[in-house]
Amino acid sequence: MRAVLKIGGSLIQDEKGDIRVERFAEYAKVILKLREENTEITSIVVGGGKTARKYIEAARRLGVAEGLCDEIGIRAAQLNAQIMVGALDREAYPTIPETLQEVAEAAATGKIVVVGGLQPGQSTNAVAALVAERIKADMLINATNVDGVYTKDPKKDPSAEKLDQVTVREIQEIINEKGFFAGKYELFDMVALKILERSKIPTWIINGEDPKNILRIVAGENVGTLIVY
Amino acid sequence: MRAVLKIGGSLIQDEKGDIRVERFAEYAKVILKLREENTEITSIVVGGGKTARKYIEAARRLGVAEGLCDEIGIRAAQLNAQIMVGALDREAYPTIPETLQEVAEAAATGKIVVVGGLQPGQSTNAVAALVAERIKADMLINATNVDGVYTKDPKKDPSAEKLDQVTVREIQEIINEKGFFAGKYELFDMVALKILERSKIPTWIINGEDPKNILRIVAGENVGTLIVY
Amino acid sequence: MRAVLKIGGSLIQDEKGDIRVERFAEYAKVILKLREENTEITSIVVGGGKTARKYIEAARRLGVAEGLCDEIGIRAAQLNAQIMVGALDREAYPTIPETLQEVAEAAATGKIVVVGGLQPGQSTNAVAALVAERIKADMLINATNVDGVYTKDPKKDPSAEKLDQVTVREIQEIINEKGFFAGKYELFDMVALKILERSKIPTWIINGEDPKNILRIVAGENVGTLIVY
Amino acid sequence: MRAVLKIGGSLIQDEKGDIRVERFAEYAKVILKLREENTEITSIVVGGGKTARKYIEAARRLGVAEGLCDEIGIRAAQLNAQIMVGALDREAYPTIPETLQEVAEAAATGKIVVVGGLQPGQSTNAVAALVAERIKADMLINATNVDGVYTKDPKKDPSAEKLDQVTVREIQEIINEKGFFAGKYELFDMVALKILERSKIPTWIINGEDPKNILRIVAGENVGTLIVY
Amino acid sequence: MRAVLKIGGSLIQDEKGDIRVERFAEYAKVILKLREENTEITSIVVGGGKTARKYIEAARRLGVAEGLCDEIGIRAAQLNAQIMVGALDREAYPTIPETLQEVAEAAATGKIVVVGGLQPGQSTNAVAALVAERIKADMLINATNVDGVYTKDPKKDPSAEKLDQVTVREIQEIINEKGFFAGKYELFDMVALKILERSKIPTWIINGEDPKNILRIVAGENVGTLIVY
Amino acid sequence: MRAVLKIGGSLIQDEKGDIRVERFAEYAKVILKLREENTEITSIVVGGGKTARKYIEAARRLGVAEGLCDEIGIRAAQLNAQIMVGALDREAYPTIPETLQEVAEAAATGKIVVVGGLQPGQSTNAVAALVAERIKADMLINATNVDGVYTKDPKKDPSAEKLDQVTVREIQEIINEKGFFAGKYELFDMVALKILERSKIPTWIINGEDPKNILRIVAGENVGTLIVY
Repeated sequence: MRAVLKIGGSLIQDEKGDIRVERFAEYAKVILKLREENTEITSIVVGGGKTARKYIEAARRLGVAEGLCDEIGIRAAQLNAQIMVGALDREAYPTIPETLQEVAEAAATGKIVVVGGLQPGQSTNAVAALVAERIKADMLINATNVDGVYTKDPKKDPSAEKLDQVTVREIQEIINEKGFFAGKYELFDMVALKILERSKIPTWIINGEDPKNILRIVAGENVGTLIVY
Repeated sequence: MRAVLKIGGSLIQDEKGDIRVERFAEYAKVILKLREENTEITSIVVGGGKTARKYIEAARRLGVAEGLCDEIGIRAAQLNAQIMVGALDREAYPTIPETLQEVAEAAATGKIVVVGGLQPGQSTNAVAALVAERIKADMLINATNVDGVYTKDPKKDPSAEKLDQVTVREIQEIINEKGFFAGKYELFDMVALKILERSKIPTWIINGEDPKNILRIVAGENVGTLIVY
Repeated sequence: MRAVLKIGGSLIQDEKGDIRVERFAEYAKVILKLREENTEITSIVVGGGKTARKYIEAARRLGVAEGLCDEIGIRAAQLNAQIMVGALDREAYPTIPETLQEVAEAAATGKIVVVGGLQPGQSTNAVAALVAERIKADMLINATNVDGVYTKDPKKDPSAEKLDQVTVREIQEIINEKGFFAGKYELFDMVALKILERSKIPTWIINGEDPKNILRIVAGENVGTLIVY
Repeated sequence: MRAVLKIGGSLIQDEKGDIRVERFAEYAKVILKLREENTEITSIVVGGGKTARKYIEAARRLGVAEGLCDEIGIRAAQLNAQIMVGALDREAYPTIPETLQEVAEAAATGKIVVVGGLQPGQSTNAVAALVAERIKADMLINATNVDGVYTKDPKKDPSAEKLDQVTVREIQEIINEKGFFAGKYELFDMVALKILERSKIPTWIINGEDPKNILRIVAGENVGTLIVY
Repeated sequence: MRAVLKIGGSLIQDEKGDIRVERFAEYAKVILKLREENTEITSIVVGGGKTARKYIEAARRLGVAEGLCDEIGIRAAQLNAQIMVGALDREAYPTIPETLQEVAEAAATGKIVVVGGLQPGQSTNAVAALVAERIKADMLINATNVDGVYTKDPKKDPSAEKLDQVTVREIQEIINEKGFFAGKYELFDMVALKILERSKIPTWIINGEDPKNILRIVAGENVGTLIVY
Repeated sequence: MRAVLKIGGSLIQDEKGDIRVERFAEYAKVILKLREENTEITSIVVGGGKTARKYIEAARRLGVAEGLCDEIGIRAAQLNAQIMVGALDREAYPTIPETLQEVAEAAATGKIVVVGGLQPGQSTNAVAALVAERIKADMLINATNVDGVYTKDPKKDPSAEKLDQVTVREIQEIINEKGFFAGKYELFDMVALKILERSKIPTWIINGEDPKNILRIVAGENVGTLIVY
């Protein structure tokens, strides 16, 4: 079983931009443990977090074109990816691929391939979906800072219910109608959904503040929301 | 004045997949003429046309993953791009860039950079928008097989009116409400619109069956629809 | 035992340029079967077929330099190669190498490396010979649309005999004297012969319209012509 | 006249790791102004600053090998370099070279080439010296957070005198004897000195907190220390 | 007027493998002089000379595959090419391209592109022809250690006459009949002839022991043999 | 156990620049033997020897910049590296990496990676230290033309004693005080020492004129000097 893991930037960097060293170590431990079992995290996509936002904001103030701002965000995500490579040590592919073809070539060596962003115009969610599709992963685990997909915004409405399963159409309706995911699932992430849907990749949205949730998902526990097709 | 030109695949290849040699020659003539004047076509993005569709269809029948099908379509578009390089001869950058960074590096030489697709998960419309944004083009000319954006589907409803100008929001409404552009502007192209909007790139949608429409646009004639922000 | 397989473009594309999907599937099946046995098809070189000829013809009509026409043919062959990569799925190296060094690097991963053309001025026969030489293959299987090498042109002279074995010198004599292979083995292919000869690579010329002939050759059946040194 | 400019990381990032946006803008203004005059800043080498130190420290805590920590520092410097590219806009080479050969190739286009670190085991001072040597620069301007080279540590000893000119041997003696530059010019920087010496590149050490010092140096004012050979 | 210059390895290295430093300087002087006039040496192809033969011989004794021996010869030629780059200084493209596409990209910068070998299975004569074809050169000057093409071997037969002009067919006849060029124009060079012929590139064979012969050719003097089509 | 082996250029090339073919064969034999046992030579760094010195001297006479002279020396070392690749045959990674990242990527395939120089400004001793650090080798074996580190110059002072173990500080003192290693361990090699020290890589200095000394070291014999930290 081959899985791709997306780790949101906020899970590995705090709001001041400091690196969550312990968190990196926890993720590395979980990933290496899974590798010894029957689920292999073939590739990891890491977000750019606060470093990305800080550099992009500076760039915008200098009047830098949006396309180049995207590249700056990608470089920041690659910096986080390089830390993850270091944490995984010899099990990781030693460099950070910069195109989907390079991801595929790196994966051919059997090492864990860690990726930051790839090209402008794509969120890291879209990158994770593209990587999962390109290397024919059996599953995508999207570690975010929420528990899963809710019917309404749980912070505002106590009647909000976490969904165990959700279709792409349902996600779109939730976004359109209530929009409580608005800050998270805007247009570029529509691309991620579209790619997941066309390739029917089973995708879990889990709370990544506890990396052990990955082990729970793999063990069959229901600790997030599964996107079904 | 720097412009990017997108040429839809159907304009340079017929439905059987044969190359429209004369059409390539006409485009080359127009582009080289503009280069001598004050509007420089800095980069050209070429679609994959029938060759792309034929190869992708074959790949799908073989069970090839969608992500790889995208790469096959990109390669087909690059084949068309190489023909355009040949037609432009010494004024063209001699090879076909495969990432946005390579596009930017090639453009730094001052040659006309011809591009097919870049990475999976992006339509050639999105590629054209990204290229225009990355090289800070002053204008994007999108040569399609229609005259511009209509209020309704002109083939079905004689009351349809061609719009001289249109906002991104209006395009989205037309797509959602009437959907007569459905086959053309589906989700991935939303990405193109999003990019154009964030960088506010003046974009003309013109009928590319007559390449001289490019000269008309540059001369100030209103022969298509301008996307405004 | 490591073998290189050359598949002529006409075997996988028909005269209209349509992809022979079933044929690709048959080849994939034979190659994957051999991989489980003791003969490993380490690398496959695929011709450009009708797509190559169509695009080159269009390029020539546009006055494109011959060297660039070669590159266009190479790109077309790489398009066919990408389809083969898709058909072989996870056993194939995921991208298409573009130099002999990249072929060697890709082969170091143990995956099946699929190659289109490499550089201008070389036929795909020469590419196959160079690849076989570079990765020290024990055998080259050249799948064509004929049964092997004949003493005369079998279509014109009923007394023509298929040769079970042939030396490079004999091939050259047949070409020079009667030239019935003229359309096939012209000058550039002399390079292929020269390379095979200097590295003494046992080479079978077989009829590739039936991909199972590859299994027959490996099983010791005499279904083509063997070039000996 | 061709010059290389080294900008220390602390000049463009504060101690919290925030980007000094105004400082970037000032440098861009000075560099573009010089480009219109007779001194051309051909290449700029930018340090990694606080971002580099923060990521390296996190990596070390995770037990990452020192060689990889160097690469992480290089990536951080490249992030700063990308901001500088954005600030210089069309006059800058659009991407960040990663080897000395790529620096040379980029410089061949006539654009300003911005570089972060290159390879592990080299300080950005050494990188600046290597770049100056490779592109045959006539001058290297090293913008630091001190006024130049002093006979003693000016912060500790009021009798310290700033030297207008200094030889490499004198720098070495100052380092060995009192070592007040100890934190700055340790062993790896010996490599920088060695390279400057072998190629006899006139090198100014100036206070880069005021980017206009670059204009003063070029105008013949003595606002720093010149290394002579 | 754009020309490609091929310099045989024996012209720049003596039989012991020592570098003919003065000869390199003479060539650089002639090339830079022409660049100021109306004939531009756009690209230079340099042979591997004695260094190539010495290393290939050692490799063969170690049982190295012929394909890899070719690569070793190419590396040796690239070493000579790098010396030529140094001699031409800022007018030369700073690195040595390794594929025909890289040659074309380098040539797009307007610098003189110096090339050693490119890929296995090609003589440097073939490389020179391919380069001339790819960059659409108006002329190829092949500097060898003979005065031109003779009707017979001038060392053996005093009635041998130097030909002012020669067709490809005549060269082939001379090779076949008398073979006095045997050591020079064997099979791989047939590829060179074939390429020159298909692209009809005017090609001078001159004695390169006196680099000023290049100036004489350009001035219209008849100091060698011209291949015509 | 993973080891890196540095082979000084003088061990594989004689003073005339001829290749010591037998020596290459002996090294290959020892390395392949070790690979079958529990010590794996993961990477080999080869010096440039007489070829490097000869070409650099020629370049200097032509006024070539020192930085480019370094590149010429690197190319010469890569030529020796390619011969070693040929001698190791299928166990070697087939091409020669040119950056530390490429070394790491090549090593991920499990093949023996042979390296010449990498970037200007680094001795091959520094390269060997950087490679050992990057791939986390357990040991570095530095094969030179001396028996190890002596207290004094053994050729001049009969009381000189070979040290079984030595610290980096002791090496530095020996260099500073007596300087009998002066020609060998000058400044750039300080970088090598610095890198070995920061990563605490056990390093043997052995006499490489007898390649079997590598086997002796691995077997626990004390045939050189061990650098300890």
